Amino acid sequence: MGAHDDGRTRAWEAAGRAAAALVADGDRVGLGTGRAAAAGIRALGRRVADGLTCVGVPTSQASQALARELAIPLARMREPVDIAFDGADLVVPSGLTIKGAGGALVRERIVDGSAGRFLVLVDAPKISTTLDAWGVLPIAVVPFAVQHVAVELPDLAPVRRPGRSDDQLAIVDLTVPAGSDWEVLDARVRAVPGVVDTGLFRVRTEHVFVGAPDGSVTTLAEYPLPA
Amino acid sequence: MGAHDDGRTRAWEAAGRAAAALVADGDRVGLGTGRAAAAGIRALGRRVADGLTCVGVPTSQASQALARELAIPLARMREPVDIAFDGADLVVPSGLTIKGAGGALVRERIVDGSAGRFLVLVDAPKISTTLDAWGVLPIAVVPFAVQHVAVELPDLAPVRRPGRSDDQLAIVDLTVPAGSDWEVLDARVRAVPGVVDTGLFRVRTEHVFVGAPDGSVTTLAEYPLPA
Repeated sequence: MGAHDDGRTRAWEAAGRAAAALVADGDRVGLGTGRAAAAGIRALGRRVADGLTCVGVPTSQASQALARELAIPLARMREPVDIAFDGADLVVPSGLTIKGAGGALVRERIVDGSAGRFLVLVDAPKISTTLDAWGVLPIAVVPFAVQHVAVELPDLAPVRRPGRSDDQLAIVDLTVPAGSDWEVLDARVRAVPGVVDTGLFRVRTEHVFVGAPDGSVTTLAEYPLPA
Repeated sequence: MGAHDDGRTRAWEAAGRAAAALVADGDRVGLGTGRAAAAGIRALGRRVADGLTCVGVPTSQASQALARELAIPLARMREPVDIAFDGADLVVPSGLTIKGAGGALVRERIVDGSAGRFLVLVDAPKISTTLDAWGVLPIAVVPFAVQHVAVELPDLAPVRRPGRSDDQLAIVDLTVPAGSDWEVLDARVRAVPGVVDTGLFRVRTEHVFVGAPDGSVTTLAEYPLPA
């Protein structure tokens, strides 16, 4: 890992610590998927080792394995969780967020979407003034429908990823033309039969934790907008 | 099979013949799931044996097996189909239709929903003035989310069926209280993360073929309403 990656890792660790610090005794905690979420899970594991009682609800088999390794008690998704933390691919100042690069978007919607507080862990490169800076919307599709969905969305250049998600769904990356209204486009995509969910989320800006390599954390609500 | 079942079988066969008669040379044909759809597939098989060229797109492994047995050429779902025929659990005069008793609702939505003409094959007992006469809305759910969906919809007494659908989804039957607005309820159910699709369809009344034991067929558009 180069110096740059070390800096990003320290930024995610800072955001992860800030999220884990907000877990209260007895909480059900949604455990996100990806490198930033993993930093949060490790921070939570340290709190559990120090005596915190909580139950984790993982959004992927990978996060489940990590949490188990850290001896965080686990439960299956059932009731809404009290708090959840997860990474993102890109967040804009309105709180619109793209997720799904890790392919776990369906479980993330189910678990994170149920949370009383859903904390998003990012670093500065993941904040932008426009979702066009990412330009990709991952969607989860019933495998039977993949070709049909591609035929229905020719302008979005659908590309199916190899393999399947933990839920045995296909993950398809859509390329969103610059200048698109992402929410309008999202509604259009969701209306295609066989599309199970998309990676477009809306989060509260005060729940977006932007970590920095120096260990500091700022919420998006108070974050200086990129030029 | 008793005299009553024989009568229903003859009614479905009549509706199935009427549907198969509308398939044109070169059509892509959506093949539904269930006993009425099977009658249509058998009628189509006879036309194929007589020289019709068409390609079937099955909505279930069961229908695929039947069509293969009848030597109907098959294709995977890709482009929209020209025509589709399928059964239903209940149809009301507005064209609102409940499907999904057979558990194939996701593929039915994908295939049937793409059809230029979507023909629904029923007999008189499946026509009612109100969906409350059926009272059950089947939904397809990502297995990970089943317990969560049940917690979110306690007033609908969700019951998970054993096993999984052809798409590896859980099928959950919701009990809809009499007097409900089914379209409002459907929108609420669809908004729960993890719900992939529901069995509520809207079809054109002139495309609902009501077969009778005497071999006659009436469309719902011209059908005398039940008292």
